Amino acid sequence: MKIHDRPGFPNPARIRIVLAAKGLDAQVEFIPVDLIAAEHKQPAFLAKNPAGVVPVLELDDGTLISESTAITEYLDNLDGRPILTGSTPLEKAVIHMMQRRAEAFVLDPVGLYFHHATPGLGTALQAYKSPQWEGREDMGRREGTRVLEGYRYFDGLLGRQDFLAGDRFSMADITLFAGLMFADAAGLPLPEGHAALRAWRRRVEAQPSVQQRTGQDFLREDLVRMGY
Amino acid sequence: MKIHDRPGFPNPARIRIVLAAKGLDAQVEFIPVDLIAAEHKQPAFLAKNPAGVVPVLELDDGTLISESTAITEYLDNLDGRPILTGSTPLEKAVIHMMQRRAEAFVLDPVGLYFHHATPGLGTALQAYKSPQWEGREDMGRREGTRVLEGYRYFDGLLGRQDFLAGDRFSMADITLFAGLMFADAAGLPLPEGHAALRAWRRRVEAQPSVQQRTGQDFLREDLVRMGY
Repeated sequence: MKIHDRPGFPNPARIRIVLAAKGLDAQVEFIPVDLIAAEHKQPAFLAKNPAGVVPVLELDDGTLISESTAITEYLDNLDGRPILTGSTPLEKAVIHMMQRRAEAFVLDPVGLYFHHATPGLGTALQAYKSPQWEGREDMGRREGTRVLEGYRYFDGLLGRQDFLAGDRFSMADITLFAGLMFADAAGLPLPEGHAALRAWRRRVEAQPSVQQRTGQDFLREDLVRMGY
Repeated sequence: MKIHDRPGFPNPARIRIVLAAKGLDAQVEFIPVDLIAAEHKQPAFLAKNPAGVVPVLELDDGTLISESTAITEYLDNLDGRPILTGSTPLEKAVIHMMQRRAEAFVLDPVGLYFHHATPGLGTALQAYKSPQWEGREDMGRREGTRVLEGYRYFDGLLGRQDFLAGDRFSMADITLFAGLMFADAAGLPLPEGHAALRAWRRRVEAQPSVQQRTGQDFLREDLVRMGY
């Protein structure tokens, strides 16, 4: 199978951690997508994923799967022994709930902040932004406030339990971890305090699948090139 | 178990269809949430769901599950025979991908249009909107354009297959169906044409679970009261 992505970006990092956790790295060919040149907004890529975002999983028969949650469901269930998306109905539900909260409270608003309150990925991508956001950096900055609220929520939660969905590392932790990585790069690092969230971050960094990927995929070379 | 919701609204409708499809109606007590009075933005409700949206599933032991996808995963897997969220890794992946597209391309932008380009649910809720949206009806209207693009995407897809995830009705169809219901109420009805999408809508309306719920839950009394 192939993954169309770009290392160093948050959603690609999510799937690369999943691949490491499932021991599937060797079965995957990575196809680079030039996000800086807005390759993901051109017709050839939009035919693969009409949402115009990476990563996209391409199976050997040509089937295309996008959306990180969907790709994770596929990879995690491939061997019939899911370890990241839950086994019981309750585990599945809590993991999906927390994974969505990690997106809605942190990862998504970081993305809006990055693209609309900062120069984002630069000029090529500018043409593909909604024109209504032009000159509305205040709306982008409001998203930064939502991120801070998200940090407080997760800090409270993680004061009561080790991982987002309870006592086991899951897809939800991967999403929030990628969100914090992106927030660092976008200029929204975790403020002072947040001891429980910081302790959780160290627990996630200690996961073998995350260790295997840190450094390789979190170089943030594109972001650094853009001045972050 | 209990469901905290308000009939007539899109996300509550999703879960009520799921309950009907799984034959679980009789096991559920519905607790009404007064959306017009912004009850879902008050501390008592936010303690149940920090995202401040309905529906919320409350299990008999007090466990709270929010996010329609998560609630659907729970209810659909409860009897060990999932019919809406997929059985194989590929089914799960395609259903989650299409369910997310139905939200991102239709349901979510209809909600943004409804709340920001129209009076939405009225004055009580106004205080809980992001202040940056104040006077930015043009941004709300832009979301209406995204909905039209979403209609075109799904019309193309449904010209090639019967349901969003292939040849079987799934969670993804329920999400898009709720999105179209909401769009009608918000003043963004499907324009002329879109024959494949219209034919799909009739196929969904013919599903026993949807038939059982239509009329009961799609009265849209609150929306009608607000002038829609």
